[in-house]
Amino acid sequence: MQAFLVDRRRLISAKKPRPALRPGWALIRMRLAGICNTDLEILRGYHDFRGTPGHEFVGEVCEVSGLPAAARRRWLGARVAGEINIACRALGLHPVCGYCRRGLRRHCARRRVLGILGQPGAFAEYLTLPVENLHRIPDGLADEAAVFVEPLAAACEILDQVAVRRFARAAVLGDGKLAQLIARVLRSQLRQVVLFGKHAAKLALARAAGIETRKAAAEKRAERFGLVVEASGSPAGLAQAIRLTEPRGTLVLKSTFHGAAPVETWPLVVNELTVVGSRCGRFEKALELLRSGAVDPRPLIDRTFPLGEAPAAVRYARQPGILKVLLEGPLTPG
Amino acid sequence: MQAFLVDRRRLISAKKPRPALRPGWALIRMRLAGICNTDLEILRGYHDFRGTPGHEFVGEVCEVSGLPAAARRRWLGARVAGEINIACRALGLHPVCGYCRRGLRRHCARRRVLGILGQPGAFAEYLTLPVENLHRIPDGLADEAAVFVEPLAAACEILDQVAVRRFARAAVLGDGKLAQLIARVLRSQLRQVVLFGKHAAKLALARAAGIETRKAAAEKRAERFGLVVEASGSPAGLAQAIRLTEPRGTLVLKSTFHGAAPVETWPLVVNELTVVGSRCGRFEKALELLRSGAVDPRPLIDRTFPLGEAPAAVRYARQPGILKVLLEGPLTPG
Repeated sequence: MQAFLVDRRRLISAKKPRPALRPGWALIRMRLAGICNTDLEILRGYHDFRGTPGHEFVGEVCEVSGLPAAARRRWLGARVAGEINIACRALGLHPVCGYCRRGLRRHCARRRVLGILGQPGAFAEYLTLPVENLHRIPDGLADEAAVFVEPLAAACEILDQVAVRRFARAAVLGDGKLAQLIARVLRSQLRQVVLFGKHAAKLALARAAGIETRKAAAEKRAERFGLVVEASGSPAGLAQAIRLTEPRGTLVLKSTFHGAAPVETWPLVVNELTVVGSRCGRFEKALELLRSGAVDPRPLIDRTFPLGEAPAAVRYARQPGILKVLLEGPLTPG
Repeated sequence: MQAFLVDRRRLISAKKPRPALRPGWALIRMRLAGICNTDLEILRGYHDFRGTPGHEFVGEVCEVSGLPAAARRRWLGARVAGEINIACRALGLHPVCGYCRRGLRRHCARRRVLGILGQPGAFAEYLTLPVENLHRIPDGLADEAAVFVEPLAAACEILDQVAVRRFARAAVLGDGKLAQLIARVLRSQLRQVVLFGKHAAKLALARAAGIETRKAAAEKRAERFGLVVEASGSPAGLAQAIRLTEPRGTLVLKSTFHGAAPVETWPLVVNELTVVGSRCGRFEKALELLRSGAVDPRPLIDRTFPLGEAPAAVRYARQPGILKVLLEGPLTPG
C-alpha cells in the first residue's frame, strides 16, 4: 500500500505492506483524512515522530482480528472514525496503568497516539486501530462532515470539563480550524459567543454560524468574559486571554504551541482565575452534534487532495489563512 | 501618631494626625503587625503604593462611627483582625459593582486594599477599617498566633476552591512563610503533604509540623502529585510545579512575583491540568484552625521589632532565609 512518512521535515511516499493486526484490532481503509495543525507541527520536527502522520479520518473496516464472529460481522464494512489514544489493554499490557485503572484511558501513561506517538496514522491507504477505539458513523452523515469528528470531540471536551451553561457568554481567541469548531460547539450551548480573530474571511465564516466576531487587535479594555477559550495557537493569544478573563472566571487552554511563552502569572492569582488545559474528547457528543446538524463543519473545508498528492496538500495547508485541507483515499487501494 | 510611609523604595517615619472615620468604620490601635513578602515587593516599587504599608495585624478597637449604641459597645475594646479588601458598600459607592452584587467582595472592581491599594495600612500606631471587615480574636488566642490570621486565611482559600480531600496527598513548592502555612493547612486535611524547599532550617520547621520534605533540587522524575501548590515565589517554581502535577491534576498558584515567567504551556493542555489562581481567603476557617491548635504558626516567627524600628525590621526581613518578622505597637500610642 502507499503510505506517507515524515522524513527530515518532509512528507515522502513509501510502499509498505498492509499492517498486520493484533487481536481486538481492525484494519481500516482510509476514505477521507484531515490535516491538523499537529501534523504541521510534526513536520516542523516536534513530537519526534518519524512514522505516518494523520489522526483525523473516516474509513471503512475491512478486517478485524480475534473477535467472536458476531462482533466481526458487526464491524466488517462499517464506516468508522476512531479515537486516537491507544491504552494499556489494547496494547496487551497487564496490569494496566493507574490512569487506565481510573478510567482515564486518554491519559494512559503508556499510550500510543495515532499518527502522533508510536502508531502509524491515516496518511496511508490503510491504518489499524483497536476496535474499542472505533465509532460507527451514522448513515446519512457525509464523510466530509464525519472527518471532523476528532477535532470536534476535542472541542466538546470543554463541555465535559466546564459547566458552560452557567456562563452568560463566552469568548474564543483564534479564528483557525480548532477555534472555529470550539466557537460552534459553545454556540450550541450559549446565546452569545464572541470570536476574536485576524482574518476577515475567517471571521465572516464564524458570523455565518451565528457567532459574533471581533478583530483580535480591537480588544476593548473594559470587555471581560466569564469564560474564555484560548485557541489562537500563539503566545500572544495567551496573554490576551488572561486579560480577557474576568475575576473568578474560567480560561480554557487549547493551544499546544511549542516553546516557552513569557507569561505574567500574577493576574491569574490576583483575579483567582481557573485555567483548564483541554485536549482530546469523547466522540459521542461530537457525532451527535454532527448528526443533528447543530454543528456543520463543512464550510471550513478549503480543499481536498488525493492521498497521492499528500506532500502538495501539506504545503498548501501550511500557507497562512488556509482552513481544513483533506486527503481522499483511493477507491481501489493497492 | 507615628506612621511609616513608602518613599522612594524606603520606609520613612512620619507624624500624622489620627485618621478620621467614615460611618460604619472603626479606629484600631495596632498591637502587632506582620511583614509580608507583598510589603517587601511594595518597597521594591511594585503595586505603585506610596502610603503606609502593612495588612497583617492584630489590634484593639478604640472608636467606631455611625453604628447603633449596642453595636458600638460590642466592638469597643475588642481585640480584632481585619479582612483587607474594602468593597463598594463600605466605600459609600452606590450602586455596588457586579462583583459585590454577586457576593464576591474580595474581587470588588473598585476595592481598596489595606496597605496595598488606596488604604493606609498597619505599619502605624492606628489604622481604620470598615466594621464589616473585622473579626474578633477568640479569648486565649495569643496575639503572636492571631497576627497570622490574614496569611493563614489566604492559605485556607485553597480549601474553598478545591475539594482537597479527594486527593491522597499534596505537594507544596517553596519553604517561605506562605508555603509553610499552606503546608500546615493542607496537613490538617490530608495524611501526606510534601514540601519542596531549599533551606535546611525551614525544611526542619516543616517536618516538626508533620510535613514531609524534599530538597527542591532532588525532584524525582517519576514522582507526581494530584494536587500541587506553587508558593515558591519564583518563575522556576512554576515550571517545576507543572512537571510535578500528574495528568488531570490540580495546580494551585499562590505566588505573585512580578515579571513575565517563560512557561511551556503545552503540558497544561496535553495533561489537562486545572490551574487555580488563589489569593485572599475568609478569616473564619483560619481563626478556627488557630483556636483549635490544628495550626500553630508561632514557630515561624523569626524576630519582633518595636514599631519605631520598622525600617530596620524591613531590612532584616529582606535577608534571605528569614521567616516572619513582626512589629509591635507601643502600649501607649501617641
